[in-house]
Order: sequence, then C-alpha cells, then structure tokens
Amino acid sequence: MITELKRIVGEDGIVESEAARETYSCDGITHHRRTPDAVVLPRSTEQVAEVVHWCAKNSVPFVPRGAGTGLSGGATPTTECVVISTARMKRILEIDSVDRRARVEVGVINADLTRATAPVGLHYAPDPSSQTACTIGGNVAENSGGPHCFKWGATVRHLHGLRVVLPGGEICDLDRDADPLDLVGLFCGSEGTLGIATEAVVRLMPDAPSVETLLASFKSLDDACACVESMVAAGALPSALECIDRRTIDAIEALEQGGGYPRDAEAVLLVELDGLPQQTAAEVTQAREQFKAHHALEVRQARDEAERLALWRGRKSAFGAMGRVAPDLYVQDAVVPRSRLAHVIREVCSICDRHRLQVANVFHAGDANLHPNISYDGRDEDEAARVRQALREILDLCLGAGGSLSGEHGIGLDKLGSMTRLFDETSLAVMDRVREAWDPARLANPGKAVPMPGGCSERGTPPAGGSP
Amino acid sequence: MITELKRIVGEDGIVESEAARETYSCDGITHHRRTPDAVVLPRSTEQVAEVVHWCAKNSVPFVPRGAGTGLSGGATPTTECVVISTARMKRILEIDSVDRRARVEVGVINADLTRATAPVGLHYAPDPSSQTACTIGGNVAENSGGPHCFKWGATVRHLHGLRVVLPGGEICDLDRDADPLDLVGLFCGSEGTLGIATEAVVRLMPDAPSVETLLASFKSLDDACACVESMVAAGALPSALECIDRRTIDAIEALEQGGGYPRDAEAVLLVELDGLPQQTAAEVTQAREQFKAHHALEVRQARDEAERLALWRGRKSAFGAMGRVAPDLYVQDAVVPRSRLAHVIREVCSICDRHRLQVANVFHAGDANLHPNISYDGRDEDEAARVRQALREILDLCLGAGGSLSGEHGIGLDKLGSMTRLFDETSLAVMDRVREAWDPARLANPGKAVPMPGGCSERGTPPAGGSP
Repeated sequence: MITELKRIVGEDGIVESEAARETYSCDGITHHRRTPDAVVLPRSTEQVAEVVHWCAKNSVPFVPRGAGTGLSGGATPTTECVVISTARMKRILEIDSVDRRARVEVGVINADLTRATAPVGLHYAPDPSSQTACTIGGNVAENSGGPHCFKWGATVRHLHGLRVVLPGGEICDLDRDADPLDLVGLFCGSEGTLGIATEAVVRLMPDAPSVETLLASFKSLDDACACVESMVAAGALPSALECIDRRTIDAIEALEQGGGYPRDAEAVLLVELDGLPQQTAAEVTQAREQFKAHHALEVRQARDEAERLALWRGRKSAFGAMGRVAPDLYVQDAVVPRSRLAHVIREVCSICDRHRLQVANVFHAGDANLHPNISYDGRDEDEAARVRQALREILDLCLGAGGSLSGEHGIGLDKLGSMTRLFDETSLAVMDRVREAWDPARLANPGKAVPMPGGCSERGTPPAGGSP
Repeated sequence: MITELKRIVGEDGIVESEAARETYSCDGITHHRRTPDAVVLPRSTEQVAEVVHWCAKNSVPFVPRGAGTGLSGGATPTTECVVISTARMKRILEIDSVDRRARVEVGVINADLTRATAPVGLHYAPDPSSQTACTIGGNVAENSGGPHCFKWGATVRHLHGLRVVLPGGEICDLDRDADPLDLVGLFCGSEGTLGIATEAVVRLMPDAPSVETLLASFKSLDDACACVESMVAAGALPSALECIDRRTIDAIEALEQGGGYPRDAEAVLLVELDGLPQQTAAEVTQAREQFKAHHALEVRQARDEAERLALWRGRKSAFGAMGRVAPDLYVQDAVVPRSRLAHVIREVCSICDRHRLQVANVFHAGDANLHPNISYDGRDEDEAARVRQALREILDLCLGAGGSLSGEHGIGLDKLGSMTRLFDETSLAVMDRVREAWDPARLANPGKAVPMPGGCSERGTPPAGGSP
C-alpha cells in the first residue's frame, strides 16, 4: 500500500511512522480515536483523484481531513483506512473582486482567505472559533458556522461551486449557479461521505463601512436570553449576537490576558452591528433600549478597532480558557427554537449541577445554537460516567424542546448513534440511498453522518448521546 | 385506471373529460403541450401517497402540478401519465409567530400565506411575479425567486422542512434544521423528479418597520446597469433592485391602467429599501447619490403605501402587458456575472434587432437575473424560426459571459436539451445517480431537469436552446 501511494503522492507526500500517524487519530473530540494505516498529503486534485481511485480499486476506505479542528469526530478513522489530508493544498487560485468570489484549494486556512482579500475590501464571512486553524475544506464538510453566521449564514450560503473527487476517483465540478439539483448544497455538510472537495469557489462579502460592537452585562441568564428573544422579535439583525455566561467569564478572566469582562454579571451579550454608519447608529440606539428594558447592569461600546478586538478577545479565547479548567472538555452543540432558549439553558445548568459537573455556556444566542461546555477529567471513571449521563439528558432536553442534534459541528462519529432518535426509518433510508448513489462501495468516510441501515450496531441500540 | 384512482381520491377528485384535461397540458410555456391521461386532485398527503403508490405499482409516470404558472415546462406532461394537482391541498395548518414559521399544505397560494400572516406582522418573503396564483409547492419545485429575493434569497432559503411523498409512495419528513444531509435543499428545485412535496414548513419574516421605494429613470440602459453595479459594489443591499427598459415601459403604459412610468427614459430602476427608519433613510441618501452619479433623469420616491404600490404596479403588470403586444411571449431566464450585465443586455437587444424581433427587458438587476421577453406570433413560421435562432444566440451569449441556464424559472422541459452545454458527462452522471437513488423506476416527472444518460435523444443532439 505504502509503495503504491508513494508512487502517487511522492516520498514526501506520505506520513509513515506510527507516532506521526497517531496525530491523525482524532479531531477536536479526542475521546474517539483510531490511528490510520496511512496518511497521504496530496498536492493537487489529480493526486487526490489517483489516491481515491487506488482506494476504490483496492476496497480501502478513505477519510478526508482538513485541519482536524472538527468537534464531532468527522475526521476520525473508524476502520482500516487511508487519511487524505489537504494540508498541502493551500493555494488561493483566484480572487475576483468584481464578482466577489474566490477560487481556492480546500486546504486554505479560513482566516488566510480573509487576510488575502482584505486589500480589496472583501472578506469570507463564515468565522468558526477555530478560524485561524481550520480549513475551507473542513468548513465545507461540516457546513461550519461561527458568530457572524447569524446574519450571513453558515458555509453553505457562501459557496458557488466545488471541485470534488467522487468516491470512485472521478473529478467532478459542481456549480451551484447552474441548477437544477443543488449538489453543492447537498455536498456541503456531508462530512466526506460523498467524496472529497479539492477546490471551492466561495462568495466574498464587502467589508461593512461601519461596525459597532457592544457588550452588555446582565444580572441573570434569563434577562440576557429574554433580551435576545426581544431583540430578534423586534426585527434586529446584528451580524453577531453571542451570549457568555458567568462560568465562562470566570474561566476567561483566569487567563493571563483575560477579556476584561464584568465579574459581577451572570451573563454578557456581545452584539456586533454592521452596515452603513447611519444604519449601525440606529441599531445601536435600538440595542441599547433593549438592554435597558432587560435590566442590563452595564453597557460598553467599542470606540475603535482596538477596543472592538478587545471586546472579542474574551469570546475568542473561551474554548482555550475552558481547556485549562480540567484535562478534558466536551463541547456540546445543539439548536433549539429561540423561544425555548432561556428555559433550555436553565435546565442544562440544573442537569449539570445535579450530576456535580462543571458546565459553562458560551453560545450563538441569535441562532439559539447552544454550546454547553463540560470540563471534566476523563481519567476519573465516575466523572466520565456522569458526563455521559448528563449529555444524554441534555440531548433529551433539546430534542424535547423541538431542537435538533447539531447546530454547526455536524453529526460525525459522535452523534451518529442519536440519529435514530430524530429521524424515522424512511428518512434515514432516503439519506442512505443518496449516500449510496454517490458511494455504492461505502468507502468514503464510513461510519459518519448517516447510520448504515440494517445490521449495523448503530441502529436499534440505545442512544450513545455523544459519549465522552 | 380511472376506476382505481377514483377509489383513492373520490368521484370529485378526478378530472375526466378530455377538454378539462387539456387545461393541464402545459404550464406558462405554452409551446410544449401534451394532454395527460388522467388528472387527480387529492385532498391529503395520504391520498397523494396512495396515488403515487398506485403509479409505482403500475409503472405509470406521474407529474406533480401546482398552479401551472411555471415558465420552463416543469409541469408539462412528456409521456403517458397521471397529473397530480395540489389545487385542493390549500390549508394553512399552523402559524407560529414566535419561532416565525408556518406549516402549510403545498397547494396554498403564495400571496395567501402572506395575507394570513400579516395580522401578526410577518410575511413569506419569496415573491414571484405570479404570486397571486402560484403555489408554495410549485415554488418549492422550481426554487422560485422574485424581486425581493435579491436581499432575502429564493425559496430554498425560506424552507425549514418538507413532507414529501417519495416516488415509491412512502411518506417522508425532511427536516432541514436537523442535519446532516440537506435533503430539503436538494429537493427544492428538483422539479418533481424526486417526488411530490405535500406540506412545507416555511420561514416567516418580520415586516420591516420602514420601507422606502424609489424609481429612477435613465437616458440609457448602460447608465442604469452601471448604477446597479456601482450600488452593489458600494455595499448597498436593497430588498429589491429591478430594471425595466423602454420597450417594457411602452407596453405597460399602453395598458388601461399604466404604471405612470416616465416615457422619456430608456430604462428605469425600481429600488426598494427596508429596515429601521434611520437605516432606510441613510440608504435612500446613498441611492440618490448613486442615481445622480449615473445621470438619472428623474427620481421619484413613494410618500406612502398607496404611492409605493403605484410604483410597483407597472412592474407587476409587465408580463401581462407584453402578452398584449403579440399572441405569444417567450420569457427567457438566465443569470450572468453582475459585471457583464450592461454588455449582455446590449447584445441581447442587438441580437433581437438583427432578427427583427420585439424584445423587452424587465429583470432582477441586483441578481443579474435577465428576463428578455420576446413577443411574437407563433403562427408565423418564419418569425418562430427567428425566435428560436435568437434564443440560441442569447443562450450562447449568456453562457459565453460565464452565465448559466436559468436564474429562477428552472430547467424543466424547456432547457433540458441545453444541459449538456453547461455540464460535462461526470456532472450529469452524478445528477442522474442522485435522481436514480430517489426514483429508480423513473416515474417521477420524467423528462425534466436532468437529462437521461445514454440512449435518450436529449443527449448528444444539437441544443434546442429553449425552442418556442
């Protein structure tokens, strides 16, 4: 195998030693692990196609991988396989500032694209927390979101086209602007189960002439959630509408360079408004009225870009900060109807309290996309069991409130076992038939996203509920 | 057949006489016609499922049909078939004003949904020109657009879920908020080739607190197009940005109740801005500066709702007005890169002039979605041949400019023959495999959207180019 793969990707295009391969054994959800049998680092679409073709011919499964920052185990091997890393496909091929699109290889890092387009006043809107590391290809696979997706939508809204290598090894250009079946939309979020994207044509957005950033603190999470609901109900469409609870603030402020967030608050809202200057001025007034009506303790407004970045610093460092609280961190991801936000968050806290677990909530409040973060020590069997139980209860809670399994992290490996809780047999069968149409041999990232019908252990077993 | 279908839908659920069935022989593109063998009018998802199941068992193709206002022949029978009309599935099942969604049967007329949600300050955003007649189901099938889709997106952006009857007769709920494969997005725009939607859960949008409508007239179409390009480049995001050329204005003003549009202009732009009052005020100022910079002859601004509706009246009656110019009208639909808009429109006019044809352009300028409308007399063989030739040249022009086959009307039957011009074999094969996954027996609206591979006459033959 190694010899043949080397022939395709060259001596330096393969990761051979077991220690090095182990780096590819998981993504950001580290409790699922398996070391792949080979890791290749192709340099072109053609090399990817040759590798996939070799896999097809030899019935070897393959697992596409971007930066490995995913949070659902989407890039984690589940079986003997070749990991195809896009780490060396980092070229920005074209920036068209008139029609506002860029053609990039999928290994391009999210933040690098915006850095490259900044000189012409454009940016790539989706901004996952991992944007300084994650790749466009990984974002496509998981349909990644981010704080600014409340106004501008997740990855799928920012794609014009994809060059993909199908599971048989054929190269295919999918063009969304060209109807009739939205195969780009289907591919985005399919977590590598329909093949590997190698190039993307993405939409670029003009930088807003004016950006205003506000931080409002509240004496209760209920007030903050009610404020969010009321703002959205009044028609406000901030570019970001984030909520950070006290436990998260505590973790952030324990860092060397904290966020300077108010320590007396039970929750803060971070609100960003963009548009024409007069528009954002009007929206600031409206937001301040809403803060006041919901008993905000304090409101800060950034006076310049430095202050704006300072207000964001805490939010951006939240996950890193929580990583310091305990050896392990489970970032849960779910969406609920916005009207149930306050209720669900309250219940999440009470579930975790009951199981003596540390939970911190930092979430995209505008989207009602929750991220309860549970810090724990995986070596402590009893605590790990309590985490599993709590996650099951949180999932029950969210589904019971009319929510769904994932907001932006995907199903991956981690939530595969819960798919049967949300979907009936017919729906799962349709997903499986679509998958089979692309990948009859089931070699493209097996064990992800869509449960296998029939004999597979995933079906019919009790839900794992994202077990750590 | 009739007896068995009657058993399912009842005596009054079937259209028997040939004269009545002929009404179902085409949609808004009347040059493709075929009278269906039976037309059923089911009252429920269950009845639709039974009819489809009967079709599957007896290998009879079926053609889903909404109001028949489509403009690509999507609802036109191509073979012996049963037409399944959703005309009697008109119930609005639920309006949730907090989470802003409605559950409706697909036969609900687009404008009726907004009428029903107006009392709670919400509306359904997609607004095709045919919105007083077309159905939500037809909109889903064609992923319909409309003037306000520039800001808010076409139908696919406004769907949370669909209840569909699969081509085998199974009922399946597709839920977009519940990952992982975006089957709702795939279904939307698939023109009935993946089954029939019977219910839709749609997104409702809050009515904007302030709406400003402006009409600017220009002494050349070039000025108007340059103004559009410049507005969009400056970051403006009007809720509608429509362009109407002089020939269209002439047709409108020939109506009893014209639009009152300026007769000295070569083109007018109809611009609508929505949002907070301060925001729209700022946007009006910005728009007026752009108009001035592009030598606008005159700018009108609606002072109240009555004046707003008056400014829109002309635009809304454009297609009806052109229907009076000649017995037949071909509404072409294509999208080009926005930077090529002025060039393409100029060339469209010169192509039609060369072929001595009457063309009028009314189009979604913001989206660069063209609608050259050719008025002609189909009984005049020579003129019809010239129309065919002109349409082929227009299609060449748009594709050559980097455009695509359809902006919002779909591929349907009318543009099926041109699919091979835009897509290579691999792409078409993927579309076909997806289709086959849903409909292995190929009974769901055959001959639409995706060309059949191999032996079928559509492939390998010279492009028909949307022949009238």
